[in-house]
Amino acid sequence: MRRFSLNQATTKYWPMPELVAGCLDAGVTGVGLWREETAAYGLDKTAALMRDAGLTVTSLCRGGFFNAPGWYDENRRAIDEAATLGAPVLVLVSGGLPEGGRDVDGARARVGAAIGELVPYALSAGVRLAIEPLHPMFCSDRCVVSSLGQALDLAAPYPAEAVGVVVDTYHVWWDDQVWAQIGRAGREGRIACFQVADWITPLPEGVLLGRGLPGDGVVELRRFREAVDATGFDGPVEVEVFHAEVWARPGREVLDAALAGYRAHVA
Amino acid sequence: MRRFSLNQATTKYWPMPELVAGCLDAGVTGVGLWREETAAYGLDKTAALMRDAGLTVTSLCRGGFFNAPGWYDENRRAIDEAATLGAPVLVLVSGGLPEGGRDVDGARARVGAAIGELVPYALSAGVRLAIEPLHPMFCSDRCVVSSLGQALDLAAPYPAEAVGVVVDTYHVWWDDQVWAQIGRAGREGRIACFQVADWITPLPEGVLLGRGLPGDGVVELRRFREAVDATGFDGPVEVEVFHAEVWARPGREVLDAALAGYRAHVA
Repeated sequence: MRRFSLNQATTKYWPMPELVAGCLDAGVTGVGLWREETAAYGLDKTAALMRDAGLTVTSLCRGGFFNAPGWYDENRRAIDEAATLGAPVLVLVSGGLPEGGRDVDGARARVGAAIGELVPYALSAGVRLAIEPLHPMFCSDRCVVSSLGQALDLAAPYPAEAVGVVVDTYHVWWDDQVWAQIGRAGREGRIACFQVADWITPLPEGVLLGRGLPGDGVVELRRFREAVDATGFDGPVEVEVFHAEVWARPGREVLDAALAGYRAHVA
Repeated sequence: MRRFSLNQATTKYWPMPELVAGCLDAGVTGVGLWREETAAYGLDKTAALMRDAGLTVTSLCRGGFFNAPGWYDENRRAIDEAATLGAPVLVLVSGGLPEGGRDVDGARARVGAAIGELVPYALSAGVRLAIEPLHPMFCSDRCVVSSLGQALDLAAPYPAEAVGVVVDTYHVWWDDQVWAQIGRAGREGRIACFQVADWITPLPEGVLLGRGLPGDGVVELRRFREAVDATGFDGPVEVEVFHAEVWARPGREVLDAALAGYRAHVA
């Protein structure tokens, strides 16, 4: 329970104060936040709400999208927001191919270079950048970083205190190399964020909102938690689910389901 | 043009005799067949139709689904059908996780063992088994073989004349290891089938019918054809697209579009 963190995306429509009250009531001490929801409630107000409640902000989602116009300034703003919220980690989703483009190698190289440009600012702000590999089904339109090994290759040129990686079970469970790459991530000191969601089918149109609560799908979640822990990682375990049906349920009910799934399948 | 082959799935509702006439008229000499369509028209009748027209059957889809009851007999039947049709290659889609199961390593090991059980029969029939890695989004429910490297690992214990792999651009384009694995596949003499489809978004619900005609998406198709050719491969290039909107168009119109896409983006 100490390590459980509720990623806010799991209960997308739960108003911020109710989410905080619900977490306190359930004994949850960690919350992962999203920029949109934080901005809607107010950045400073959110920071104060979390601080006053004694909740730990475990991560902020998200920076990245390095092929969007203005990406550099936008990512600096995201780093600032993470610092204001006390989030140690800013999750980076790289963005897909440029409009009309097919050069995936080039797009990946640009991601590495863009992260390099942000490193000094992130270091000075005390916020760690965390490269998130997304499932290969998002490669063209959302994230050209498609495996944990690739995320680690992109992080390699930069100090581990500045650039880490996200291990999200939903995105990497299919990869027969992932166990070796989790070991490598541990040795290289790169595990910045560990997120848990389950894989369920059929996938919905557009495939974004298909993540399942822990235990509802086929991922060996406990094996992942044990593999990450075996590297010495002792950080938060964020449950992060996007699913229209989950979002339609009351926030507290979803939190309780996430906690039950976490206890039964992850902890 | 000599190497172009129309995979029948691209023009799913084109009746067999019209498909043959259309191919002859367009100068197409190769066709990839599917078991369901072949059975519906009649196996021997299909074989005679192809033979009389002088068309080469480049592959038969598909065997596999090794966790289905009766898989062994069903795959022997598929091998027999390939032999009757003169198809040199039977494409294998492994099947997903067993119902209610999470053990993906175990499922993959069973695929390797099942293929081994089929090798003697395939050799005696003169039909080559071709392991097809499917995109990781199909890992749980359709195919636990998720990368070309993994397919090659599964093929490795068996003679290359008995077990090869399929390189299908749609399934492997996102993989930064794929270029090295194509080289390996060539060195190991394993490239049994080369299929081309493009990656388009958004993906439809269930994600199966989302393949695009060559040139409609983001895959570096010519780079793939050149990489496969660089290993010494000189076999057919099958255009294989499943898409509801493509299926709704007249067969000849789709064939012409496939040919145009092939010339512009593959050949």
